[in-house]
Amino acid sequence: MENYPGVPSINGFDLAQAMLEQAESCGMETQLVETTALEQDGKAWLVRTAEGEYLARAVIVTAGADYNKLGVPGEERLTGRGVSYCATCDAAFFKGQHVAVVGGGDAAMDEGLFTTRHVDKISVIHRRDRLRASAILQERAFANSKMEFVWNTVVTEILGEEAVTGVRLRNRETGEDSSMDVAAVFIFIGQHPNTDFLRGLVPTDEGGHAVVNDWMETERPGLYVAGDARRNSARQVVSSAGDGATAAIAAEHYLSSNFAA
Amino acid sequence: MENYPGVPSINGFDLAQAMLEQAESCGMETQLVETTALEQDGKAWLVRTAEGEYLARAVIVTAGADYNKLGVPGEERLTGRGVSYCATCDAAFFKGQHVAVVGGGDAAMDEGLFTTRHVDKISVIHRRDRLRASAILQERAFANSKMEFVWNTVVTEILGEEAVTGVRLRNRETGEDSSMDVAAVFIFIGQHPNTDFLRGLVPTDEGGHAVVNDWMETERPGLYVAGDARRNSARQVVSSAGDGATAAIAAEHYLSSNFAA
Repeated sequence: MENYPGVPSINGFDLAQAMLEQAESCGMETQLVETTALEQDGKAWLVRTAEGEYLARAVIVTAGADYNKLGVPGEERLTGRGVSYCATCDAAFFKGQHVAVVGGGDAAMDEGLFTTRHVDKISVIHRRDRLRASAILQERAFANSKMEFVWNTVVTEILGEEAVTGVRLRNRETGEDSSMDVAAVFIFIGQHPNTDFLRGLVPTDEGGHAVVNDWMETERPGLYVAGDARRNSARQVVSSAGDGATAAIAAEHYLSSNFAA
Repeated sequence: MENYPGVPSINGFDLAQAMLEQAESCGMETQLVETTALEQDGKAWLVRTAEGEYLARAVIVTAGADYNKLGVPGEERLTGRGVSYCATCDAAFFKGQHVAVVGGGDAAMDEGLFTTRHVDKISVIHRRDRLRASAILQERAFANSKMEFVWNTVVTEILGEEAVTGVRLRNRETGEDSSMDVAAVFIFIGQHPNTDFLRGLVPTDEGGHAVVNDWMETERPGLYVAGDARRNSARQVVSSAGDGATAAIAAEHYLSSNFAA
């Protein structure tokens, strides 16, 4: 990571570890367990987990979101070795090369167009015969001489030993298989917040991201959602860190206003 | 600062410097000039400054906010040496001591109550004969045995050479002067965003903070306000840094959707 303000260059794991140790040194206690359900219990919240229950006056959900995966051979093994879900993060590693972009929505075009600053050629692999992206993004993508479009086609395998060397493709109309040499595969087929346990509890957008106000408050007292799991997150580490601080301040205020000290 | 996630302990100046150098290494150019006016000019924005004009397609205002000052002798000189505008930041330095809190609103009570965790005694100095704070905060403050209230009284001077040793007070009813020994003075008489040049351009709250949406967008295309200058900022370094990243992403999207590359 090069874009977390104040820390010029660090890997994500080390940054997370530094944040964890810092918070623990201020008294935060950590339990690494999977939340299975969240239930309102009078003025408190019951958090059911795989290893017991917690009763809390306030809960800040920071469950994040995961990128949707293709689910094809090679994808998991080559992630970080040419398979990427973030062009802003990784496109610069493929200067002058030929890469694939998978997807046909706004994110695919937005990130694809960004990627043209670095690479020589982009093949956009899309399962349908037209894009879902907004008209202006489509126009810009079609006008870009570095971008070519491979329609009605899905990726069936990502090839490579140490790093990506190519993709296997299948045309959904003809059933024909083919392969293409590429140095990287950027996959933009959406993402899903890890918020199954919020279903029915708070309103979400159609993608499942919780609706919150400026203070990360849901419409249920004492329940906050911060970071990628909320609606309209900028999905950056620093914006999620800011969300967390905002939710903590709001929760502290809620506790001190509603419960005896 | 101990509360910027990922950087366990740093002074504010060094953190700002690190962020500046990091952004400049990514190509950001900096001009340190005072903005005097901001005007819409067709699809662009004209930024008038003390040293010339800038024409920009998008402007992100991060002018911040300043705490209101008492404006009394000793205040400026002893800031950071016992004079503080942030109990969360500084209360722990005065463990077991007697401190003054100036103000009668929510912030004064909220921060005062927080401060009771650390200090032995708090004298709340308030210019009126009742608090402006919400009922529940008043109730909690009056119930706290560490808090005493000095009504109808203003601070006329903050005393101390190397560090705060006391305050000079004047009773507004009787005109009587007195002094009180305290180790610190926490001042909570509001804050004002540095947004004079936004007046009439975008809606603000009654304190002058610009109204923005989740993406830091004002209602004027291409004009963003991030950080303490916007409404409902959590006023933390990390939340403002997150706001800035969010505004930058929104501005990039605005530029690429509305202007030729």
